[in-house]
Amino acid sequence: MARFAFLIEYDGGPFVGWQRQDGQASVQGTVEAALARLEPGDHTIAAAGRTDAGVHATGQVAHADLTRDWAPSRLRDALNFHLRPAPVAVLECAIVPDDFHARFSALERAYTYRFLCRRPHAVLDRGQVWRVGRALDIGAMREGAAHLVGQHDFTTFRASNCQAKSPVKTVDSITFEELVRPGGTEIRMQVRARSFLHHQVRSFAGTLERVGAGAWRPEHVAEVLAACDRRACGPVAPPAGLCMTGVTYTPDPFPDPPERIMPWKGGVGRLT
Amino acid sequence: MARFAFLIEYDGGPFVGWQRQDGQASVQGTVEAALARLEPGDHTIAAAGRTDAGVHATGQVAHADLTRDWAPSRLRDALNFHLRPAPVAVLECAIVPDDFHARFSALERAYTYRFLCRRPHAVLDRGQVWRVGRALDIGAMREGAAHLVGQHDFTTFRASNCQAKSPVKTVDSITFEELVRPGGTEIRMQVRARSFLHHQVRSFAGTLERVGAGAWRPEHVAEVLAACDRRACGPVAPPAGLCMTGVTYTPDPFPDPPERIMPWKGGVGRLT
Repeated sequence: MARFAFLIEYDGGPFVGWQRQDGQASVQGTVEAALARLEPGDHTIAAAGRTDAGVHATGQVAHADLTRDWAPSRLRDALNFHLRPAPVAVLECAIVPDDFHARFSALERAYTYRFLCRRPHAVLDRGQVWRVGRALDIGAMREGAAHLVGQHDFTTFRASNCQAKSPVKTVDSITFEELVRPGGTEIRMQVRARSFLHHQVRSFAGTLERVGAGAWRPEHVAEVLAACDRRACGPVAPPAGLCMTGVTYTPDPFPDPPERIMPWKGGVGRLT
Repeated sequence: MARFAFLIEYDGGPFVGWQRQDGQASVQGTVEAALARLEPGDHTIAAAGRTDAGVHATGQVAHADLTRDWAPSRLRDALNFHLRPAPVAVLECAIVPDDFHARFSALERAYTYRFLCRRPHAVLDRGQVWRVGRALDIGAMREGAAHLVGQHDFTTFRASNCQAKSPVKTVDSITFEELVRPGGTEIRMQVRARSFLHHQVRSFAGTLERVGAGAWRPEHVAEVLAACDRRACGPVAPPAGLCMTGVTYTPDPFPDPPERIMPWKGGVGRLT
């Protein structure tokens, strides 16, 4: 019996979200079904973030207890064999202490929200961006976002069905980068916090889009936050633009770079 | 009557390629059908590159003659309205001189080939990379590629059905970059030439993968080239990793950055 942590990438498009729901395709259910192919019986895995329908991940972390002492790289390959062709892949596996919990041991979670700023519809990035159809003023977005960093009552940015006990959270950082894209630009917003309220990042994204578009002044974000009123929030941004990119634990369950088949170096010509 | 140039992005996955084929979905046929919605009748558009089935583009260029004097940005938006939901978008339109020809006026074409170097299958990039399942030695690939730059008889790297009159082409440059990706790395190879033989870039990619994997030494690429024998080539790399990224003309038909709805700057708060 050993506890394993999994680093997971998925395309949220075809799923009702991370969480298992009877009769519907969920990421959790898909990974649990793959585990059942390896060790018959019921498996319940816990994840760092219960992402919504349509939200992606490149750095979701989950854990499960297994009976066999799997070599982590063999377990990863075996799970991926059974996961295919679902758009879910286990990037890394690691044996972790019995008290490791993907959700409760997490010190920080990181999300990225992608705005595609151009009039033509998204093509190669479709389903993975929010096409906003206009240029956004990244400077104004940075100014507006500064009001959201730190410990605040985020009632304004919380879905009505949010189950968190308190609306008070601490946002560690919000950073932006702008990239040149065919036909326009892309703005990526990275948000880090120990934990989030339901729809918090998408509520930030929808509010800051209003600021970037010039409809709201950056200082209006401070008023919206202080209102502690859901109705003051901007529109909730679509799920497709959101991606869970990483979770921080101490110690890091995946300290090593992914196992590599080292290429030939200067003469031997063998793959090892 | 005016001639228009189009900058086009597409996902090649669902298409038999650029070129129109009766009863099958082609990119050319899809764009021509959208044009017919704007100006009834038959339209034939010419493109800079007739990409194969499964090959993508972010910078394909095509031209067509239209009866109405369309404002370029209106024409772009109208075409995109009719193109959706096909994974094809017109990024820019421009009025060009009557002697402009997307294929024959092109001075240089640029392609990018993406290798995803990791064992887990591709998820968010699926259909847009070649997952090679191992690390590749980018230094060895650069060394091997250097033998392919310049004017050569590229018979080794030419599909048997290639219709070009001569196998002699001039490759202007081959450059590589390595990016960190969830679970591994990605190597991007950019190739530039005035024109290419059929399957030339994918034959380069398949050959240089053998070098990066350590199966072939970099100097072997010189022998393969000198053989002028299709059988000496490495495996032709899959189409999904290939993307046509740009075409050079003088003057540039798309000199201006994409039209922008300028965001609010410091007080006015209006979208114009």
